[in-house]
Amino acid sequence: MEFGITFKGDISPERTIALCKQAEAAGFDYVWFFDSHVLWPECYTTMAVCMRETEKLRYGPCVTNPGVRDWTVAASTFAQLNRLSGNRYDLGVGRGDSSRRVLGKKPLNLQTMVEFSQACVDLAAGKKIEYDEREVELVWSNSPMPTWFAAYGPKALACAGEHADGLILQLADPWLVKWFSKQALEAGKKAGRDMSKFRIMSAAPVWVGDLEKGRAQTKWFPAMVGNHVADLVEKYGKDGGGDVPERLVQYIEGRKGYDYKHHADKNAGHLDFISSDIIDSFSILGDPAAHIHKLEELKRAGVTQFNIYLMCEEEERIVAEYGDHVLPHFR
Amino acid sequence: MEFGITFKGDISPERTIALCKQAEAAGFDYVWFFDSHVLWPECYTTMAVCMRETEKLRYGPCVTNPGVRDWTVAASTFAQLNRLSGNRYDLGVGRGDSSRRVLGKKPLNLQTMVEFSQACVDLAAGKKIEYDEREVELVWSNSPMPTWFAAYGPKALACAGEHADGLILQLADPWLVKWFSKQALEAGKKAGRDMSKFRIMSAAPVWVGDLEKGRAQTKWFPAMVGNHVADLVEKYGKDGGGDVPERLVQYIEGRKGYDYKHHADKNAGHLDFISSDIIDSFSILGDPAAHIHKLEELKRAGVTQFNIYLMCEEEERIVAEYGDHVLPHFR
Amino acid sequence: MEFGITFKGDISPERTIALCKQAEAAGFDYVWFFDSHVLWPECYTTMAVCMRETEKLRYGPCVTNPGVRDWTVAASTFAQLNRLSGNRYDLGVGRGDSSRRVLGKKPLNLQTMVEFSQACVDLAAGKKIEYDEREVELVWSNSPMPTWFAAYGPKALACAGEHADGLILQLADPWLVKWFSKQALEAGKKAGRDMSKFRIMSAAPVWVGDLEKGRAQTKWFPAMVGNHVADLVEKYGKDGGGDVPERLVQYIEGRKGYDYKHHADKNAGHLDFISSDIIDSFSILGDPAAHIHKLEELKRAGVTQFNIYLMCEEEERIVAEYGDHVLPHFR
Amino acid sequence: MEFGITFKGDISPERTIALCKQAEAAGFDYVWFFDSHVLWPECYTTMAVCMRETEKLRYGPCVTNPGVRDWTVAASTFAQLNRLSGNRYDLGVGRGDSSRRVLGKKPLNLQTMVEFSQACVDLAAGKKIEYDEREVELVWSNSPMPTWFAAYGPKALACAGEHADGLILQLADPWLVKWFSKQALEAGKKAGRDMSKFRIMSAAPVWVGDLEKGRAQTKWFPAMVGNHVADLVEKYGKDGGGDVPERLVQYIEGRKGYDYKHHADKNAGHLDFISSDIIDSFSILGDPAAHIHKLEELKRAGVTQFNIYLMCEEEERIVAEYGDHVLPHFR
Repeated sequence: MEFGITFKGDISPERTIALCKQAEAAGFDYVWFFDSHVLWPECYTTMAVCMRETEKLRYGPCVTNPGVRDWTVAASTFAQLNRLSGNRYDLGVGRGDSSRRVLGKKPLNLQTMVEFSQACVDLAAGKKIEYDEREVELVWSNSPMPTWFAAYGPKALACAGEHADGLILQLADPWLVKWFSKQALEAGKKAGRDMSKFRIMSAAPVWVGDLEKGRAQTKWFPAMVGNHVADLVEKYGKDGGGDVPERLVQYIEGRKGYDYKHHADKNAGHLDFISSDIIDSFSILGDPAAHIHKLEELKRAGVTQFNIYLMCEEEERIVAEYGDHVLPHFR
Repeated sequence: MEFGITFKGDISPERTIALCKQAEAAGFDYVWFFDSHVLWPECYTTMAVCMRETEKLRYGPCVTNPGVRDWTVAASTFAQLNRLSGNRYDLGVGRGDSSRRVLGKKPLNLQTMVEFSQACVDLAAGKKIEYDEREVELVWSNSPMPTWFAAYGPKALACAGEHADGLILQLADPWLVKWFSKQALEAGKKAGRDMSKFRIMSAAPVWVGDLEKGRAQTKWFPAMVGNHVADLVEKYGKDGGGDVPERLVQYIEGRKGYDYKHHADKNAGHLDFISSDIIDSFSILGDPAAHIHKLEELKRAGVTQFNIYLMCEEEERIVAEYGDHVLPHFR
Repeated sequence: MEFGITFKGDISPERTIALCKQAEAAGFDYVWFFDSHVLWPECYTTMAVCMRETEKLRYGPCVTNPGVRDWTVAASTFAQLNRLSGNRYDLGVGRGDSSRRVLGKKPLNLQTMVEFSQACVDLAAGKKIEYDEREVELVWSNSPMPTWFAAYGPKALACAGEHADGLILQLADPWLVKWFSKQALEAGKKAGRDMSKFRIMSAAPVWVGDLEKGRAQTKWFPAMVGNHVADLVEKYGKDGGGDVPERLVQYIEGRKGYDYKHHADKNAGHLDFISSDIIDSFSILGDPAAHIHKLEELKRAGVTQFNIYLMCEEEERIVAEYGDHVLPHFR
Repeated sequence: MEFGITFKGDISPERTIALCKQAEAAGFDYVWFFDSHVLWPECYTTMAVCMRETEKLRYGPCVTNPGVRDWTVAASTFAQLNRLSGNRYDLGVGRGDSSRRVLGKKPLNLQTMVEFSQACVDLAAGKKIEYDEREVELVWSNSPMPTWFAAYGPKALACAGEHADGLILQLADPWLVKWFSKQALEAGKKAGRDMSKFRIMSAAPVWVGDLEKGRAQTKWFPAMVGNHVADLVEKYGKDGGGDVPERLVQYIEGRKGYDYKHHADKNAGHLDFISSDIIDSFSILGDPAAHIHKLEELKRAGVTQFNIYLMCEEEERIVAEYGDHVLPHFR
């Protein structure tokens, strides 16, 4: 299993560089950055610097979107990151969430996401593409660029399976991971692709240490992604695979009340509503043994990379704990 | 007088970094990058890396434009470059020439350029701005960002004098430098600004060594910027200040023939048309003494920074010759 | 209070560099290296690299000695470390313990240590010195070099007070720290020096976390330095200041048995002999609050720098715990 | 043919690093440092830093000697340079000239040089050696270390052929290079070694540009090494291979007068005595074509590496000229 860390962008450049070096020395494989340029500093300049300070780590956005840069600007940036790093750049793509919402714009549709991803891959490979009714080409670029799609919904999951090299799932619940990834894998097979090397990432925050403290530090995560997930499970779970675990059923029930009474209410009451069961299932908490146990479950569920959302404080300690106690178990 | 170098983007990352370090050790003050992301690799990721490998050099695009990135993306990138470098970022802006033309788009108008520049400065300073009918703010940024406008025409020159901290003039002809910069300075004074610290850059290729070889290596430069300049001198020269030097009068005559018979014809005949007088006046050629002599002229004409367009081959040698023989004269 | 970390030299270059960057970002002030070139890799080349990867951290050996390099080689190395780092080099000196013993040689006398230290300081300052019956001078050096002497015995402590800028005490027992440092301070005052800026370092391993685990990880430390300390307390404690704490009295009693019955016996029996009280008093163990509590005690005892002997495993986590939970208390 | 540059140590750290990066980008293979720690800053700390700033360049002293460091200190330093660089360290050894003379000590004998070199190689390889009547071992090291011996005299040349991986010849006279290296090669064959991969370095200053200026900049070189060479040619030339070139015969005649009348007299008269012929033959001067011509001669004489003594001013330009005009001819 590969291991990654993800930066939100709120950590100083010096700490970010130091954490990359620490992660590389600890045996991590990937460093990802949120690409949401208003909330946090633009990530590609920082990524370029971190690439130069490390030798093996791969880097990429988790995730970018087709809607804030001219596609040729995006592709030129990604291709140059490949040149600066000796081809250690992966492209994680989504439909544009926080990056666009903060500017008052909606996420883009799946078709746009697929076309954007393909345009970037082709331009980086040095191919001519048709763009905005004109032929464009980056004659100076000739590099490979693996793609990952972030997805929850059935159509997005199918897209990932049909077009990407990997799937990004923002949660660490083994049942959900399996249920989601199955949809991507089946779509890929149906499209005639060899899915044996398809990659599946589980991305989530973790806390090594006291369980209660861990819940407090990571509760924001099910709050952020949970409603979205609950929607999908409620809508497609029965038809799409049944056997929804009890904790999710309860979560879905709870969410209903939540949606209408406490919408956009970010006070303690709202957060209290999220049960410990849900927090525990969406993230990984507890002592190193608990982490290893759950990571083994995720591995059995098909996960090829576990990606730590490194934004719950004590970031250096978390990387250290994984380096000392968790990664060695998987090497 | 300050000294800078400008990269087009065709040099490998390793050589670019080495040249920055060489330039810093040699006493240069600025490193600029063309921002034309299809023709050459996106420049800001490279700039970020070079910033981290040097300690005092200032960096910036020469020039960027308002038309290829969402303005919030541009501002976030520039502000983060300030964070990564300890506020060593300057913003050079133009209306969008090669960067947009290569995508089949026209340069933008002056008003857009002024608004873009102000938006970037305000966002980097941590101020709230109105953008696309919405308030936007980079809460994580709080840095200064000096601005430079590239200009030739009377309205653009006035804009620079009224709104920017410096003026970028792409040529090293002392008479023209003085004639152009006078227009910016007067507009600034008229607008009530204190112009005593206004900065004037002369940007041009150079060749240290054999004169004939130097002409061959830099002939592309008057070909690139010359017609534009000739137009302006013809149109405004007599009214705007008279006493157009003989070599420019002849150039303007020649250009007329050129325009209609050889338009877009880049063969030898076309280039042969450009006289040695014009090549010599637009660039700086010859032995170190000749460079010092002309730089003194430019200094007297008001130039505060001479910026070498470092794209005529033998880049390391050119930086070395300036470091050994030219810069010491101005320190 | 300043904070430092000390490397033994058994950590890979990549981890060492990453730890320096982590320590700098976490707010540490100093990085020290054991200088024992047979047991571990020569430390100055590594130090040079770490200096270049950080901006504020100061570096030095903890400690070097006068007996393994020609003094001009030592001084040239130290002076160049100052040049490479912008004068961030401190000189920690001892009489030569493991570095010489491993080659079958004895530690040198105090007079040699004092002369060596002075020679290095003078040569780094660009002064001519008499060395080996000849005038020597490093004409290319002109830098300051603060000195620290490692000492336990009354004569060595006096030397430190009379000649050095700081005193290195290898233990974190507040009573002993005070008792030792008092001797240095008094000797310095007696010699007419202003001791108000004299620096006192307490250097010891730490363990943040479970107490029992911490004792197991740091037991080697009282075993290494304890007999030496016990000797001194037994010999000079009553006359030199009385009131030896009960745990030390017991330790001295125990040590007697140890000395004669188990000398050079490094099995479990030997280590078991060291009581938890002694382990706890020589190092700092427990949760962050316990560390803060003891560091406050050390501060009251006159300690100006606490230096973590970073060699008990989980090094990145230890630096992280201090950065997150301990250092903020002292800023 | 490989190419190297050698630093004397009088260039600032920043310029030294920049020159290494420039040399790597220009295609050079080796960077060497004089190891003479009183005249110039200790070289290994600087070397460590330069290693980290480059990826392919190999490094080494040109040359170190057995007489200023405990051999275990020397070996530990060299072995750690291998660890810091991924085994990019070569060991150049001599008998100790300026490094020892400046301390009033004589060079050591050849046997000591051979033993020192072998001790360093063995210790770096992780082998146990007998040293100072005691077994010593660097348990943490396990790296290869090619050796080069600097030699002029027949015994030293034989030693190089019998024990080293390469021979360092401080001059660029093809006749002399062939005459000296033949002696090493024959000794090696006689000792039963396979000399097909034996490496021969010609090390000398160069000047690209005006010949008269070049002579003025490099005249110090035949003055430094010439008397030594003349002695050997006079003593062994006739027996050892005859056919001494006319310019050397004249040099030897001249030297005689010199030796007795102007010994240790470094004024202009002394330097004027050295003929242009000798300067031209010991170094490489003139335009790039002249350099290529002479390098081809040296290649035919068996030279596998040409090493520029980079200490005649305009260092960056010299590296640039070689990168632009000379190295491409040999790739």
